[in-house]
Amino acid sequence: MEPVSAKAVWQLWSAVRERGPLVQCITNYVAMDISANVLLAAGASPAMAHALDEVEDFVGISSALLVNMGTLSADWVAAMKLAAGRAAAKGTPWVLDPVGCGATPYRTAACLAMLRLRPAVVRGNASEILALAGAAGNVKGVDSTASSHEALDAAKAVAKANGCVVAVSGATDLITDGERVIGVSNGVELLTLITAAGCSVTALIGAFLAVAPEGAVMEATAAALAVFGLAGEKGLAAAPRKGPGSLRVGLLDYLHLMGEGDVLSGVNVRELEA
Amino acid sequence: MEPVSAKAVWQLWSAVRERGPLVQCITNYVAMDISANVLLAAGASPAMAHALDEVEDFVGISSALLVNMGTLSADWVAAMKLAAGRAAAKGTPWVLDPVGCGATPYRTAACLAMLRLRPAVVRGNASEILALAGAAGNVKGVDSTASSHEALDAAKAVAKANGCVVAVSGATDLITDGERVIGVSNGVELLTLITAAGCSVTALIGAFLAVAPEGAVMEATAAALAVFGLAGEKGLAAAPRKGPGSLRVGLLDYLHLMGEGDVLSGVNVRELEA
Amino acid sequence: MEPVSAKAVWQLWSAVRERGPLVQCITNYVAMDISANVLLAAGASPAMAHALDEVEDFVGISSALLVNMGTLSADWVAAMKLAAGRAAAKGTPWVLDPVGCGATPYRTAACLAMLRLRPAVVRGNASEILALAGAAGNVKGVDSTASSHEALDAAKAVAKANGCVVAVSGATDLITDGERVIGVSNGVELLTLITAAGCSVTALIGAFLAVAPEGAVMEATAAALAVFGLAGEKGLAAAPRKGPGSLRVGLLDYLHLMGEGDVLSGVNVRELEA
Repeated sequence: MEPVSAKAVWQLWSAVRERGPLVQCITNYVAMDISANVLLAAGASPAMAHALDEVEDFVGISSALLVNMGTLSADWVAAMKLAAGRAAAKGTPWVLDPVGCGATPYRTAACLAMLRLRPAVVRGNASEILALAGAAGNVKGVDSTASSHEALDAAKAVAKANGCVVAVSGATDLITDGERVIGVSNGVELLTLITAAGCSVTALIGAFLAVAPEGAVMEATAAALAVFGLAGEKGLAAAPRKGPGSLRVGLLDYLHLMGEGDVLSGVNVRELEA
Repeated sequence: MEPVSAKAVWQLWSAVRERGPLVQCITNYVAMDISANVLLAAGASPAMAHALDEVEDFVGISSALLVNMGTLSADWVAAMKLAAGRAAAKGTPWVLDPVGCGATPYRTAACLAMLRLRPAVVRGNASEILALAGAAGNVKGVDSTASSHEALDAAKAVAKANGCVVAVSGATDLITDGERVIGVSNGVELLTLITAAGCSVTALIGAFLAVAPEGAVMEATAAALAVFGLAGEKGLAAAPRKGPGSLRVGLLDYLHLMGEGDVLSGVNVRELEA
Repeated sequence: MEPVSAKAVWQLWSAVRERGPLVQCITNYVAMDISANVLLAAGASPAMAHALDEVEDFVGISSALLVNMGTLSADWVAAMKLAAGRAAAKGTPWVLDPVGCGATPYRTAACLAMLRLRPAVVRGNASEILALAGAAGNVKGVDSTASSHEALDAAKAVAKANGCVVAVSGATDLITDGERVIGVSNGVELLTLITAAGCSVTALIGAFLAVAPEGAVMEATAAALAVFGLAGEKGLAAAPRKGPGSLRVGLLDYLHLMGEGDVLSGVNVRELEA
């Protein structure tokens, strides 16, 4: 595959739709509904399972794992660790969404503990990635107060130190493995007014990782962000009212309805640094 | 009432709308929002309560109980057992949704333990019912990989062995008490891309059981499935875009807006075996 | 500011949109999605956090706190108490939504325990407020069976005894501090068919409290109720189908799209007793 082209995005998405990979999600209560609906609309299959008694077994039948730190509690963190450990052992790609990292010491410590369990991808907003890097993240709840570009050095540092890919969401999403940087400029500002939109795109990254060829983690991550952002663009363009309620409906519709032509003409991905 | 006619469906639904039965739901996190909204739109009243300290008291004021095994954990299973036991003792009908049965040993065991507590109705997809019957269910997460007809013998076996009605969702929903079989052919394929749509129809079965006359468990189950499926048909037909976001909006609208004429002309229920 | 005028409502809402206050929500599972979306659409910032290990730290960075008793369990009640205690100590306004108060002894006791921790505002339906006042609340699940006016005396009693403002939702919302009464007549009946709509307006009250000037708790509460109700009116008026699915979409759209003209011409607030 050619890296970071619209064509590569389409190839990866086609594979998601053909194979319908099962993505196990240990995610926050707010994100569950939209994340499951995003996965279904895009052609994947969600499984929400977090019980200590079965998380490892669920990893055994899943093609990817999402761990999202949104609505933490002690039991859930234990389940997250079990699941991520099993995924790493089995070679199943897993994605970390460090929601609200930096907001409280407990949360930051929990995110760092998960980072040590070797996720394939970490996706967060600029503040979360800055906090994760130990930089002075000015985190206000779970929304970002910094731009993605301000967090690029932090993202590179986290990626290098942990051997993973880091994606920073923003007007332009930045994806890096510590060396290369891919930029994705799809999406609309109004998506930030839909709760857990970011969480749901992290789940979608899991679906793309599940079908990605060896060595294409950055491309798969960029593809998921591009497809999601493009569905937001089309959903907003088609909405008679430009509000977040209509956008959410349109987002889910277009994740299901978009085809090759939409992706080839609408996806905006490019290599920024190599 | 005449069994399994569109007229009987309308009579039962009218009773739901007149009485607004309180349906206690111990259900999974993903299903809570859509299940509560489905119950409200259809004329019933939801109560989501699962605390060990109050589940039994809630059964005391409810007209039906739903137990859904989606996002299990040890505490919740304990509450489910307490609630189902109280419902059985009090003569309150309760419905079991064995989500993901067969996916993990823990989940299968929990579903079987609930089945022993005498639900009035069990509703699942073909894989779940096959797993529940001890057959070789090929369960992929919580979505079915078998058709409803492939699970009919399993459904009959579960129904007979447990003295309950079993409903298997599919292109045609099949409802059986082990002898009779009712088929419901309402609904649209796209409903499978709305997360927890199946869970929410199980909650709706609870509402119909709450108002059903003695001995009409199969008819009430069929009526709930038919009304739900018909609302999906109308929601999709009226949607300018045929996507899952628009379908969810339309489903809820038509559960509220449909009337006698819609039901009499649109419901597709029939006796298949007697 | 002039109390209870449409102009005052607009001033308060403008402050919410300018400052984007962080509202920490310890709320029920059913309400999380819609509450977060309502806060975002209206210009505030939600944070859902309930872990015992971090609730107090979250209060430290939040401008208001919501405690909603919907899907109680022992752990959560402990976290609610910690958070409310910290808010009271820090002078952060917090709002109590006593969902289903009166339905079970456990729930009623938990609501009363929270009431003692000095919320700035309590918002419930008539049955909940009657139960909270120790009056004979005929609570059917979490929906009200009494009108707001029937609960006015109970609301005044709770307000006086606890030094707080009490809001009773209904066709006309009533807000009282035990002496004054403000009435808000925005909203549409169909909002009662959207699950957790009431819970989400309680969250919105938190956002308005966060920006309200000293001594304007009643006005801020009325403003939140008016803005929410008006968005419901506009959402329903604009909907091609008058169903709860469409209304929810329209509600979120108009919370984002309404401007000064809409508020000044559409808000219906007035002093009823002084």
